[in-house]
Amino acid sequence: MNLIKSDIEIAQAALMKPIKEIGKKIGLGEDDLESFGKYKAKLSTDVLNRLSEKESGKLILVTAINPTPAGEGKSTVTVGLGDALNKLGKNAMVAMREPSLGPTMGLKGGAAGGGYSQVLPMEDINLHFTGDLHAITSANNALAALIDNHLQQGNELRIDQRRIVWKRALDLNDRALRKVIIGLGGPVQGVPREDGFDITVASEIMAVLCLATDLPDLKERLGKMVIAYNVDRKPVTVKDLGVEGALTLLLKEAVKPNLVQTIEHTPALIHGGPFANIAHGCNSVIATKAAVKLADYVVTEAGFGADLGAEKFLHIKARSAGIKPEAVVIVATVRALKMHGGLQKNELASEDIEALTSGFANLKKHVETIESFGLPFVVAINRFIADTDNELKVLSALCDQYEIPHAITEVWEKGGDGGVDLAKRVLGLIEMQESNFKPLYNLELPLEDKIKTIAQKVYGAINVDFSAKARKQLHEFAEHGWDQLPICMAKTQYSLSDDPKKLGRPESFIITIRELKPSIGAGFIVALTGDVMTMPGLPKSPAALKMDVNEKGQAIGLF
Amino acid sequence: MNLIKSDIEIAQAALMKPIKEIGKKIGLGEDDLESFGKYKAKLSTDVLNRLSEKESGKLILVTAINPTPAGEGKSTVTVGLGDALNKLGKNAMVAMREPSLGPTMGLKGGAAGGGYSQVLPMEDINLHFTGDLHAITSANNALAALIDNHLQQGNELRIDQRRIVWKRALDLNDRALRKVIIGLGGPVQGVPREDGFDITVASEIMAVLCLATDLPDLKERLGKMVIAYNVDRKPVTVKDLGVEGALTLLLKEAVKPNLVQTIEHTPALIHGGPFANIAHGCNSVIATKAAVKLADYVVTEAGFGADLGAEKFLHIKARSAGIKPEAVVIVATVRALKMHGGLQKNELASEDIEALTSGFANLKKHVETIESFGLPFVVAINRFIADTDNELKVLSALCDQYEIPHAITEVWEKGGDGGVDLAKRVLGLIEMQESNFKPLYNLELPLEDKIKTIAQKVYGAINVDFSAKARKQLHEFAEHGWDQLPICMAKTQYSLSDDPKKLGRPESFIITIRELKPSIGAGFIVALTGDVMTMPGLPKSPAALKMDVNEKGQAIGLF
Repeated sequence: MNLIKSDIEIAQAALMKPIKEIGKKIGLGEDDLESFGKYKAKLSTDVLNRLSEKESGKLILVTAINPTPAGEGKSTVTVGLGDALNKLGKNAMVAMREPSLGPTMGLKGGAAGGGYSQVLPMEDINLHFTGDLHAITSANNALAALIDNHLQQGNELRIDQRRIVWKRALDLNDRALRKVIIGLGGPVQGVPREDGFDITVASEIMAVLCLATDLPDLKERLGKMVIAYNVDRKPVTVKDLGVEGALTLLLKEAVKPNLVQTIEHTPALIHGGPFANIAHGCNSVIATKAAVKLADYVVTEAGFGADLGAEKFLHIKARSAGIKPEAVVIVATVRALKMHGGLQKNELASEDIEALTSGFANLKKHVETIESFGLPFVVAINRFIADTDNELKVLSALCDQYEIPHAITEVWEKGGDGGVDLAKRVLGLIEMQESNFKPLYNLELPLEDKIKTIAQKVYGAINVDFSAKARKQLHEFAEHGWDQLPICMAKTQYSLSDDPKKLGRPESFIITIRELKPSIGAGFIVALTGDVMTMPGLPKSPAALKMDVNEKGQAIGLF
Repeated sequence: MNLIKSDIEIAQAALMKPIKEIGKKIGLGEDDLESFGKYKAKLSTDVLNRLSEKESGKLILVTAINPTPAGEGKSTVTVGLGDALNKLGKNAMVAMREPSLGPTMGLKGGAAGGGYSQVLPMEDINLHFTGDLHAITSANNALAALIDNHLQQGNELRIDQRRIVWKRALDLNDRALRKVIIGLGGPVQGVPREDGFDITVASEIMAVLCLATDLPDLKERLGKMVIAYNVDRKPVTVKDLGVEGALTLLLKEAVKPNLVQTIEHTPALIHGGPFANIAHGCNSVIATKAAVKLADYVVTEAGFGADLGAEKFLHIKARSAGIKPEAVVIVATVRALKMHGGLQKNELASEDIEALTSGFANLKKHVETIESFGLPFVVAINRFIADTDNELKVLSALCDQYEIPHAITEVWEKGGDGGVDLAKRVLGLIEMQESNFKPLYNLELPLEDKIKTIAQKVYGAINVDFSAKARKQLHEFAEHGWDQLPICMAKTQYSLSDDPKKLGRPESFIITIRELKPSIGAGFIVALTGDVMTMPGLPKSPAALKMDVNEKGQAIGLF
């Protein structure tokens, strides 16, 4: 039996180049980089300003089928494709999200690729990195403290303390903080009220930071965030409180993209990581826009499957930032498709053509969606060790049957070499086929119609039900002038429907909108289809129990 | 009238040298520094290990009279003395605490000196700096989440949920979080219980990080921290929970000292900043020990007045780290002594010899205390613009009368030039007078006697009263084997007594010990004389309202 190395073992054994050298590859001088140790740097404001005049490279979006516990390796393919493009002599970069500390301490380690397709230094990226998430936590909680202080000092804005919607945040999994009562202890300690904590990546500030185009836009968006309603039920914003300047100050470094490298020294911008349910799930606009100026090809990813991640990338991020992908890669695995075909995780070891064939329907739906956006695409069949040749042959044949371009990747095991076939297909697509990107809905449509369009065209639902509360909100939001914003759907990632148990390609289902939530700073209206967990919990045996530092001061137990 | 520049205007106008050059001055190569941008760096673990073999320079401790609203400028004198020693051709450094973000957003800006005696880059140091405080916040709250998760997952350690002593923390002023109820919302959301948040600098992890000598010692200390008592009233520690490795991992970068520079390019280590009431109020042992290896003279400071800061520096930090100062500087100002002599803050503008003469008693007591430790000392009379020549003459004469060595400093206005007289006195002291440092109490004494020694010898109290609760705790702590630890007094900083209104040199007073608190990881027993605020609140008009970013992306409103 082969000894398979863990991600952290591979990462710690890899030889990094100084970040100055990585910067030089993409035309950045030493003064363009604000280094954090030898292997991480932020891009300076100067370089961001200078770049705006350069011509843009081609953007490649990596998305996937609906995720299953089998794993599909979307980040790994993103990294491997970037490495493969470099191997083919192209000037390529990757642009990805930065991971949250909460899940790292809880269930799993890395969120920066895997195997030989990882971004380095893996342990830094998965711990405090360059402090972006900490800055967001600080800004989020400074705002909360300023709101409670406003109540305490006389409440000039006449905030209804029962209608404060701004929650506190920590970059941790901590279920005990989901619902709390604060301000106890008498008049000197504040005004008692219900509150709760979200994980930092669910803070609207994370979404704002990721959609802002520069520091003035960041400040503008922060000012627009709704923090509460007053006693007349009118929204109260950060600007009403007068602290958008202070929040911007706290975020002035966090807004700069972080430059790191892959194991194969491909430059990578890792910056921002909003939730993909109550937010849009993509790395920052500033990083993506910088990347396309710095490289001829930029591989980026969106969260979850194409029904959530790609849809939001296209309708929210791309539209607001004025960018568009030239090609889309849809990642699928034999294992995951077999789960979509009805197998359990413990049944994946043996060949099962029937389940694979049945589960293929999930992939096919996502292919249709990407096609409907007018985008060239290719399916990446991300090979896992246990996949049989026969299974891979059947999956290829299914793709051929529907004329779906595809390539097999082996990026976990082989790094860039395992992504060369995919890279060639992608380059071919970009050369031969024009990207005719058009959104599926116009912003002028009523919120209700925008939601229906997504549910019907992207999910395949037959209709949308709105709860009484949601109906009332549709009306109120239009009154507040919020109806010209795009929709950010908060739906389970596991199914095309709003029922996580319905895998494959469910049919004849209805999507139920329980509630709407305004994210006016980010610039979208969240439509919630069910309970969305915005503060995860820890498992019985948290990953933290195995974490440690070795005698060299290196991380142990990030896996 | 002169236009007086604000601290941030002076700081932003100052020309910094690249941190590499600053490092070179003290023998550090590029590989010894982990840079954070151009002007900040952490010392690598390698350099810390290598330094242990070098000979040690001389340590100079800066302390002060009891602080008043008039300000005494202890940090400013620390920086100015470092600059002055360099001006005299000595190889000198400063080692100081890093500021907390909470007070920055609340009442005041900088805690890194002032005027022309500042540490740079001032705005970075006062905002997120190198992320040390954020790492401590993360570790503190990860531990809290792991404790609540332990309750939720079956409570194998039989923790009494009413006796969890580990609190959560944020680096903010947020009074509404002082007393909270967490875990609400039903069985899936955790176990409801009372909790509270401290400001991060009050977390025991801050004290632990500042007293640890290296990474293994840090882990050992973290493991010893008491988090709760079980149903048998036995202490439960971090080690019982098995997460000291994970906490160490979260702190592995934060434990490395931060190198920056003063306006006059004197190298400065700014690292760690524990509260000076419930903790010991000094920068990290690792930084101080590194500094004395890197420079011939190191100027460091302790929190508050000599009754709290210097006493704890000597009894806790110096004893545990095996270091000692060769000279002590006691900072006093005419203004502050006039307040100790009975004036209000709005009465300070005009000359008042009587108040000054009466307030001198406060300075004299601190001089006696430092003498009793066997340490050479000099009083720094830190000149403020409104001080009259006559007042300065009278203060000098009072010092002469009691044979107290003294020098006038003008470091705020003149930088190092304003500290040359003081520097010469300090150098003379070190050359002529031996430091015969001896603690005022032995660790073997019972806790009660240690507390009495401090109250009588350092504060001038006639006796100590223990509340019934404290008496019970004295007994319990002895049973737990905690009675060999030093004492960390939590007393008001404004008075030698435990009554903040008794300025000057109060007499015939009794110190009341209300409660004890074990900080076993830090390695001391906190003796609380009254209510200590461990989570400050924001004022009616917080500093945050004036904070912003200018068009160059620089800070506005840090003052």
